[in-house]
Amino acid sequence: MAKNAQEMAQTHKAISISEFFEKNRHLLGYDNKIKALLTIIKEAVDNSLDACEEARILPDIYVRIKQLDEERYEIIVQDNGPGIVEKQIPKIFGKLLYGSKFHRHRQSRGQQGIGISGAVLYAQLTTGKATEIESSTGDGNLYNFRLKIDVSRNEPKIIEKGKAPNEDAWRGTRIKFIVEAVYREHKQSVLEYLKQTAIANPFANITFDSPNGRHVFVRGIEELPKEPKAIKPHLEGVEIGILSRMAHQTKARTVSGFLIEDFTRVGKKTAEEICKNAEVNPKTPPRKLVHDDFERLIKAIKKTKLINPPTDCLSPLGKDALISGLKKELNPIWVDAVVRSPAVYRGWPFQIEVGIAYGGDIKGSKVMRLANRVPLLYQAGDCAITKAVTHIDWKNYKLSSKDLSEDPIVIFVHMASVWVPFNSESKESIASYPVIIKEIKLAVQECARKLGIFLSGQIKAREIVERRRILEKYADDIARALANLTGESEEKIEKAIKELVEWRWGEVQEDENDAQQ
Amino acid sequence: MAKNAQEMAQTHKAISISEFFEKNRHLLGYDNKIKALLTIIKEAVDNSLDACEEARILPDIYVRIKQLDEERYEIIVQDNGPGIVEKQIPKIFGKLLYGSKFHRHRQSRGQQGIGISGAVLYAQLTTGKATEIESSTGDGNLYNFRLKIDVSRNEPKIIEKGKAPNEDAWRGTRIKFIVEAVYREHKQSVLEYLKQTAIANPFANITFDSPNGRHVFVRGIEELPKEPKAIKPHLEGVEIGILSRMAHQTKARTVSGFLIEDFTRVGKKTAEEICKNAEVNPKTPPRKLVHDDFERLIKAIKKTKLINPPTDCLSPLGKDALISGLKKELNPIWVDAVVRSPAVYRGWPFQIEVGIAYGGDIKGSKVMRLANRVPLLYQAGDCAITKAVTHIDWKNYKLSSKDLSEDPIVIFVHMASVWVPFNSESKESIASYPVIIKEIKLAVQECARKLGIFLSGQIKAREIVERRRILEKYADDIARALANLTGESEEKIEKAIKELVEWRWGEVQEDENDAQQ
Repeated sequence: MAKNAQEMAQTHKAISISEFFEKNRHLLGYDNKIKALLTIIKEAVDNSLDACEEARILPDIYVRIKQLDEERYEIIVQDNGPGIVEKQIPKIFGKLLYGSKFHRHRQSRGQQGIGISGAVLYAQLTTGKATEIESSTGDGNLYNFRLKIDVSRNEPKIIEKGKAPNEDAWRGTRIKFIVEAVYREHKQSVLEYLKQTAIANPFANITFDSPNGRHVFVRGIEELPKEPKAIKPHLEGVEIGILSRMAHQTKARTVSGFLIEDFTRVGKKTAEEICKNAEVNPKTPPRKLVHDDFERLIKAIKKTKLINPPTDCLSPLGKDALISGLKKELNPIWVDAVVRSPAVYRGWPFQIEVGIAYGGDIKGSKVMRLANRVPLLYQAGDCAITKAVTHIDWKNYKLSSKDLSEDPIVIFVHMASVWVPFNSESKESIASYPVIIKEIKLAVQECARKLGIFLSGQIKAREIVERRRILEKYADDIARALANLTGESEEKIEKAIKELVEWRWGEVQEDENDAQQ
Repeated sequence: MAKNAQEMAQTHKAISISEFFEKNRHLLGYDNKIKALLTIIKEAVDNSLDACEEARILPDIYVRIKQLDEERYEIIVQDNGPGIVEKQIPKIFGKLLYGSKFHRHRQSRGQQGIGISGAVLYAQLTTGKATEIESSTGDGNLYNFRLKIDVSRNEPKIIEKGKAPNEDAWRGTRIKFIVEAVYREHKQSVLEYLKQTAIANPFANITFDSPNGRHVFVRGIEELPKEPKAIKPHLEGVEIGILSRMAHQTKARTVSGFLIEDFTRVGKKTAEEICKNAEVNPKTPPRKLVHDDFERLIKAIKKTKLINPPTDCLSPLGKDALISGLKKELNPIWVDAVVRSPAVYRGWPFQIEVGIAYGGDIKGSKVMRLANRVPLLYQAGDCAITKAVTHIDWKNYKLSSKDLSEDPIVIFVHMASVWVPFNSESKESIASYPVIIKEIKLAVQECARKLGIFLSGQIKAREIVERRRILEKYADDIARALANLTGESEEKIEKAIKELVEWRWGEVQEDENDAQQ
């Protein structure tokens, strides 16, 4: 049975990316039938929100899940977005690793070009059904497709396509999947995902017809978030392999021009300093650089003080939106938020914001994790956010337990970045880059300190109420004793004591009410 | 700034799989410079062991890590395997998703076709250096290549190639990488990986020249493990998308023949029963089947009692090898192992084996996780093995702590399968399929029960020693008292008591020695 090298060579062949993910579908979030439903809706809704934001349209999203058979569901996701041009529809839905967001450095929900085509793949794998796409860009025509993926080639397979006049001038995209799945409403469900999405995207209307009835998440603000700008790569994160590839593809005619034009925040002075330290003539055409030049350039870049990347590529939720979102959905007795300044990992700008809500309708503790406004519901254990939150000793902030196990608290952590490093293609948890964990921890601690002040106020207030109760209870005894000592009337002394208590402790109680906001 | 659909369409483009993993290199195990070193060596050594096993050669593996600069290392991995034929070398090392193991259903260390090319990608990204490969199939020639990957096309880029006469008739493959990395010796290091590899592959000689000196892991047995056979897919796990694709590609001329020939363990009777239940004529040519036929076939398959897949596709370590490996490397006072019968998940056969070693040189507790003889050192929290082990209350098995935090114990868990479902492309942890967790738990519990018996023996033995000590201590007092009562001589009575103690408690101590094996 022993094989030699010639025999082994015959079995080698290329693997299509569709085959790869068909066999490894758990990597895309399809490990089980409950999660499959969530993954599909997440991919479709994320795309809709991205498209609406880019076209500056206030999103109206409609989601419907209808049970067809024991483990078979029809899923519809419809938006009022810009629509998709006819010729792009097949590739966007029928080819893995195809999209507009991978090569662009800008905050968006999608980034890999495998989410929605992964959903099409899952549908055809489990039910054999093509996915239906209807879209109109508002040009008077409604295009519709029934699509599958040719798995061995990773190319779209058009089962049917058509064009109809779009009489009511509807504009948007509507997708219909038929998949093997199971619908549940629990902590990692479609409902929870949509609820958290509503908090993080308060400018969106979301209507959800679930198998158990309708849920409506009404738009809380009438304004889209600031539009994030695309940025060029930052020199801090660039590695030699990428630098040399970029140098061979650049349109710039000199090394100095290449550094200035192809990277963000590099001025003439910085470019020349780098070239000088690298002993490279700034006038050299980039294509003529050889390996040793790149080595010296990389070393020189590492030594140069670089300006941080611009942050208009980021669109955090902001303190007010965060507080109002948490108030609206959770009805806590206390809420506050902290937005950190942007930071950088491997050259990518990112920003952490944290909201904490406490008490009121909240039962138990929960960490809500979000990346670029998308709730993350799985793989919590492996997420940078969980690691940062669980390494904090919450008793320091006046909570009842070190690990929050006995407190009514929601900690909402959002990472906004032009490139979120996820732990897997299913984008369920954030990789543990030390600088990311550090930023999260600082933000959570800052917000926790505010909660701590409120909670000590509460504790103090409880103590005060108790002290007052005791004072009032013994006021007549004290008054009698004082009357005996001073010769004043008991009534007068008792009244004076009660006024004193009112004046001294009544005021503090008001303070405590202030702290509740 | 708002964009319409036409403008958005212009930015859509295909993403090469190399670009994808270059940007997401943490998915392949390159999140940091310490781990990068381990990942590269792991991919190379796994490939060497796979090749040697397939060619039925007892492996001699040589690994060298040499520091070149502050964070720059040269890595050499060399084997005495079958070698690689010249024309396959560029694609195997220079193209992601290319290999011989993905389309075959057989237990092997590699399975994805992205491990070793991922290492080449990491080397060129971080140091700009090509990877050097030398290989000879024993035909008198030694081929050498210097390779990179053309990232935008995901194709090999040959920097240099050559051929030399192979004078000493050496056969094997030698790879040299130059990478940015950091060398450490700790619990997730190259050294630990090689140590666990030696336990799980006792038929291999491994020599490791680390920056701190030489480590040699000497072959413990002179025989290769039983060669696993490749199997066809099993009907239990087949989904409609795959069934219909296979039906359109089959060489069989009837549906019945297709079921028998293209799947494992389907006999004529089963095939006909499925066709009958699906109301499909067994003589129909598979190509003529339509969607509804496939739906009915899938339903019929689900109702049919299928024979489990054969298990000669699996090659577990076996109880003896496991015990001797743990003894050799850990020197415990107690060791035992349990090998479960094979089970099936989604149609794939798998088998769990567990070894437990206790006391002796072991300090603290450790779970060693392995899949197809490959140690898994990262992502423990998310691994099915960790989940199974931590859900056990270890106090039930006489250990000092519920969670093993105070016990000197190593739990070694090996999953052998034709397809291990990993949580990411870096293959560091096993996905949590319920049936896999269940099998692991049963195996660990069975082995833990044996340990429990030994530990209760120890506890009992300690109690006995104590009782005996007390009895012996007071023997003369008792003897005196008895002498007074009975009139016998003190010496005689004391001797009788000591004999009794020896006879009664001495025996039990021997039992306890037995339990230690």
